Amino acid sequence: MLILAGLTRKNKFCQGFARGSSTNFLDQTQKKGVVMAVFGLVFSKLAMLVITPDPLPFSKDTPADNKEYMKIIAIFYYPILYYPLLVCGTLQRKAGYVFGTLLSFTHFGVLVWQKFDCPKTPEIYKYYALLASLPQLACLAYLCIQFPLLFVKGPKTDEDLDSSYYTNYVKLLLKKKSSTASLSASDKPALAERILEVIKGYIYIPEKVFRFPLKLAVSSFVTCVAIHHTALLIVVLVVPTLHIVRAGIDENIAFLLLGFGIVLSDDRMEVVRIVTFYTWLLEVCYLCAMTLSCLVSLIMLMRSMVLHRSNLRGLYKGDIYKLCNNQKTMHPSRTGVVCWMGLTGYQAAIVSLGMAIQTIVFFICFLLLVFLIIIPVFYGRNIIVFEIAGKAWPAWVTLILVTGLQHVTAKFAFIKQKAGTRDLNNRGGLRDLFLLTYLLFLINTVVGLVVAIWRIVITALYNIIHLGRIDVSLLHRTAESYDPAYCYYTHFLKVEVSQSHPVMKAFCGLLLDMMVGGGRAGQKIQDAEEGIQENKPSKANSSQRIRSRWQLMYTLVNNPSLLGSRKHFQTLQNSENVLNGTPNRTSKKGSKMEAMLNITTAINRFASEIF
Amino acid sequence: MLILAGLTRKNKFCQGFARGSSTNFLDQTQKKGVVMAVFGLVFSKLAMLVITPDPLPFSKDTPADNKEYMKIIAIFYYPILYYPLLVCGTLQRKAGYVFGTLLSFTHFGVLVWQKFDCPKTPEIYKYYALLASLPQLACLAYLCIQFPLLFVKGPKTDEDLDSSYYTNYVKLLLKKKSSTASLSASDKPALAERILEVIKGYIYIPEKVFRFPLKLAVSSFVTCVAIHHTALLIVVLVVPTLHIVRAGIDENIAFLLLGFGIVLSDDRMEVVRIVTFYTWLLEVCYLCAMTLSCLVSLIMLMRSMVLHRSNLRGLYKGDIYKLCNNQKTMHPSRTGVVCWMGLTGYQAAIVSLGMAIQTIVFFICFLLLVFLIIIPVFYGRNIIVFEIAGKAWPAWVTLILVTGLQHVTAKFAFIKQKAGTRDLNNRGGLRDLFLLTYLLFLINTVVGLVVAIWRIVITALYNIIHLGRIDVSLLHRTAESYDPAYCYYTHFLKVEVSQSHPVMKAFCGLLLDMMVGGGRAGQKIQDAEEGIQENKPSKANSSQRIRSRWQLMYTLVNNPSLLGSRKHFQTLQNSENVLNGTPNRTSKKGSKMEAMLNITTAINRFASEIF
Repeated sequence: MLILAGLTRKNKFCQGFARGSSTNFLDQTQKKGVVMAVFGLVFSKLAMLVITPDPLPFSKDTPADNKEYMKIIAIFYYPILYYPLLVCGTLQRKAGYVFGTLLSFTHFGVLVWQKFDCPKTPEIYKYYALLASLPQLACLAYLCIQFPLLFVKGPKTDEDLDSSYYTNYVKLLLKKKSSTASLSASDKPALAERILEVIKGYIYIPEKVFRFPLKLAVSSFVTCVAIHHTALLIVVLVVPTLHIVRAGIDENIAFLLLGFGIVLSDDRMEVVRIVTFYTWLLEVCYLCAMTLSCLVSLIMLMRSMVLHRSNLRGLYKGDIYKLCNNQKTMHPSRTGVVCWMGLTGYQAAIVSLGMAIQTIVFFICFLLLVFLIIIPVFYGRNIIVFEIAGKAWPAWVTLILVTGLQHVTAKFAFIKQKAGTRDLNNRGGLRDLFLLTYLLFLINTVVGLVVAIWRIVITALYNIIHLGRIDVSLLHRTAESYDPAYCYYTHFLKVEVSQSHPVMKAFCGLLLDMMVGGGRAGQKIQDAEEGIQENKPSKANSSQRIRSRWQLMYTLVNNPSLLGSRKHFQTLQNSENVLNGTPNRTSKKGSKMEAMLNITTAINRFASEIF
Repeated sequence: MLILAGLTRKNKFCQGFARGSSTNFLDQTQKKGVVMAVFGLVFSKLAMLVITPDPLPFSKDTPADNKEYMKIIAIFYYPILYYPLLVCGTLQRKAGYVFGTLLSFTHFGVLVWQKFDCPKTPEIYKYYALLASLPQLACLAYLCIQFPLLFVKGPKTDEDLDSSYYTNYVKLLLKKKSSTASLSASDKPALAERILEVIKGYIYIPEKVFRFPLKLAVSSFVTCVAIHHTALLIVVLVVPTLHIVRAGIDENIAFLLLGFGIVLSDDRMEVVRIVTFYTWLLEVCYLCAMTLSCLVSLIMLMRSMVLHRSNLRGLYKGDIYKLCNNQKTMHPSRTGVVCWMGLTGYQAAIVSLGMAIQTIVFFICFLLLVFLIIIPVFYGRNIIVFEIAGKAWPAWVTLILVTGLQHVTAKFAFIKQKAGTRDLNNRGGLRDLFLLTYLLFLINTVVGLVVAIWRIVITALYNIIHLGRIDVSLLHRTAESYDPAYCYYTHFLKVEVSQSHPVMKAFCGLLLDMMVGGGRAGQKIQDAEEGIQENKPSKANSSQRIRSRWQLMYTLVNNPSLLGSRKHFQTLQNSENVLNGTPNRTSKKGSKMEAMLNITTAINRFASEIF
């Protein structure tokens, strides 16, 4: 491991910093696999740091008082260790892929050899290290396959703006409008369809017309890895202890319980049997709670991905108010950049903590369910809840009767259906309504107590289930900006949209294509430009201009938020006019340079103003 | 008390049910005082039922197994007991006021005599019964003053629609528009002004142009009473026990603590001193928590009242979407009527439970603050938190440094200020940004843990503070309909607005005025009508018609939600035309009857369709 570290260090210095190449997180067309795998690898290392005895691979048997420093160093060490893998994947050269293949095979080989050599470790649970390194093995195996594949395919140069994805996106955007319009015109869907719609909202199905931003894809993958590690830690920290406790139960437990005044049975062996059974139930409840919280986290992750997509699409259209009530600009701010940088880590941490809390809460719920309801029903012990409910039946019956009475009178006495519209029954009904309101005031207060308890339960459950989601604010909509996770998420989205708007990229790609002049499109436009110079009021030109005007109109109608920046837009148009209008024929080269400069500033303005 | 009960029973039969008069909860112009006082009185009785030994006044020394039935009977008995007071206040006759005076003096006298006779009771705390009956005494004293005053003033007949309030409301509504427009045109307010604005949002100042609906006023008053009773119960249930415990501390406590392995001091007297001090601290924390939760509840009540007003005003204008996302109609439904009936009780119950939970949470917070921070600082004991914080300083320093680094680099390296707009620095800055994003990924995960903990704390605090408010949904805006309290509130508001819209009432009042024919306005309009019959294209008439058209336009522009019901509106206009157009001269009486019938249906339709 030491040799490998030294080797990769050298490689890093040779490669990474020397050539200064790094992955482009704002590029939506590149292959995401390598980057995601490296991030997953790095995160796995962090997750293993939590209860590892040796944070760094150099030093064995770290003393306890140095451990914290070692962990801090490890947090900075592991990203550097795997950085060469990231660089190899984004170098866009054959040599890089060869080196990447070598590196990933080395890492993979060392890890497999290590786990094969000693699968059991002296940590809390003997197979913990083996299970925790499964995501690392998977990521490294993926890299081992991916790098040779990339080598075979060969590198592509500057994919991003050349890619047909952005132009396809714009085309499909314009095409799709009609189909959605026809959909909204249709009738209300049936109940089954609506349920299907809700279920679909929780299942992420990739779409060709929309690619997930790299940063969000990495975040989602890292979150998956985080769920694995958190679940493993949750199990490992408790279940082995429970096993030890269960193995240690003997006849003394009866005396111990007697000391606390608890008599489970007169027979001592019976007591041992009951206590063993209860600890087994504890374990089952705990594992059920853990599984449930895993499931909830995964479902919430899928839902988040669906919402990320719809939020990004909304923001592409300028629909800022849906996301954040008070912020009107889309400029990347200082906070925005910091949030953009940290989002992946924040999401992983929030999901992990959310899972831990969910497990605890679900565990308590399962315990209450099992010990207060299931055991009394099947074994006839602990029937305290049923006793209380039995004693309180007059109260329950009264509450139900009064609530029923109110509903029945409301339906038949106070509400009057007439000509399709409903209204209060004014003739005499109102007086009875007021009388009933007064007389049932006190019993409604008691009903209110039930409502209040239900409110607390539902709020707590909702918030605990949604704790791991950063795309949902847990506070009321007027206080959304105080929820730090949601705040980070909105900042992140703003930076993402302002920097990698597909329409802007399509625009930039077209302009670049035009400027390079080598491409077919560039040639065409150049020809057309020549044509304009010669016979100015040509038909093709005027129709194109009319079409562009219409497109501007269309854009403005669909994006009312752009109207505010029309002044800048006019400046942009002016600078475009300089380009398209009448370049001085005598110094064509110079004018071209000037035009290019104009385009660059125009793109910058366009990008910074509109998106 | 028995005699009084019999007396009032008889009165009730004589008065209430015989004449069938009841208070009109949808009338905004009547005096609210009497109704509020009666509701406060009834609620006080309920609050005293919680720990009273004798739920009903007839039977002393109720056996424990009958107590629950007695309590249920009491819940229905007390509203009936005080019903005559309510009826007397709304009878609108001199005899009613006389009888009300008598009744309230009797009730007041009996209660004062009872408390004077035995101020101490054998309940949990000796002065509990005395303190708990303070709101009752206040309410009865208010009634004792109010009834003679009403008697002196004399009754008014059918105030509601005759009142000038509704027409004033409409006038001020139309007038106000210009002043608010000039306000919105002014510049952004300074920080001090904005803070003042926020503080103003929490202080309810009554306005002449807007009267609180009676049901909401009653709810607010009952909530105040509920806060008093809950605070009293919270104190009474715990503090006397603490006093007893403190009085019982002697030297044996040192041995007891030794049994648990806790050694506070070698000197036994010193141990007694410390334990006594700690129990005193417990009590102080508890009382502070109770006071804080009272304050929070009162502030939240004021805030609620401000929001009730703005919500009602919004609904009067047809602004439904601000309140509930998915419900588009304002018809009173079955659920709506049930919610309207129960709201006062629900709110009181929710505030009471909210206060109890707030007290517990604040108590825990105060305990942590005192025992983990204040005592260690002042006495040098329990310094465990400081020890942990001291050990973990490298982690804190690293986190702060890294966060600072990200902010500094974001500000100076990655963000470029150019021509007033901010953007990412594209030249080289992006590559460094990506590199930093990758390298700091792990440490950002640790930062994310801090963020997640902060998120949990802030969400819990926010929800606990807002638990007692029914006008705020505690769930995310997409799930608002699952919050039962908020759901009830929106239903209530819809019924309230659909039944007592001031503009509708002003309209009805004008129409009635016109029909009665005795009033000046009626005479005028009748004269005008005669005029129309004689010379049809008179100037006054056409200008009036034009004005009414403009008013219709104005209404529709300000209430886009009305546009959907324009078809019905046209039906209404048709029926109005029948009235205003050409009544048959030969049978004027008959046509007037018909017109009146038309108006009634028109009003009904208008009311049910538009509001």
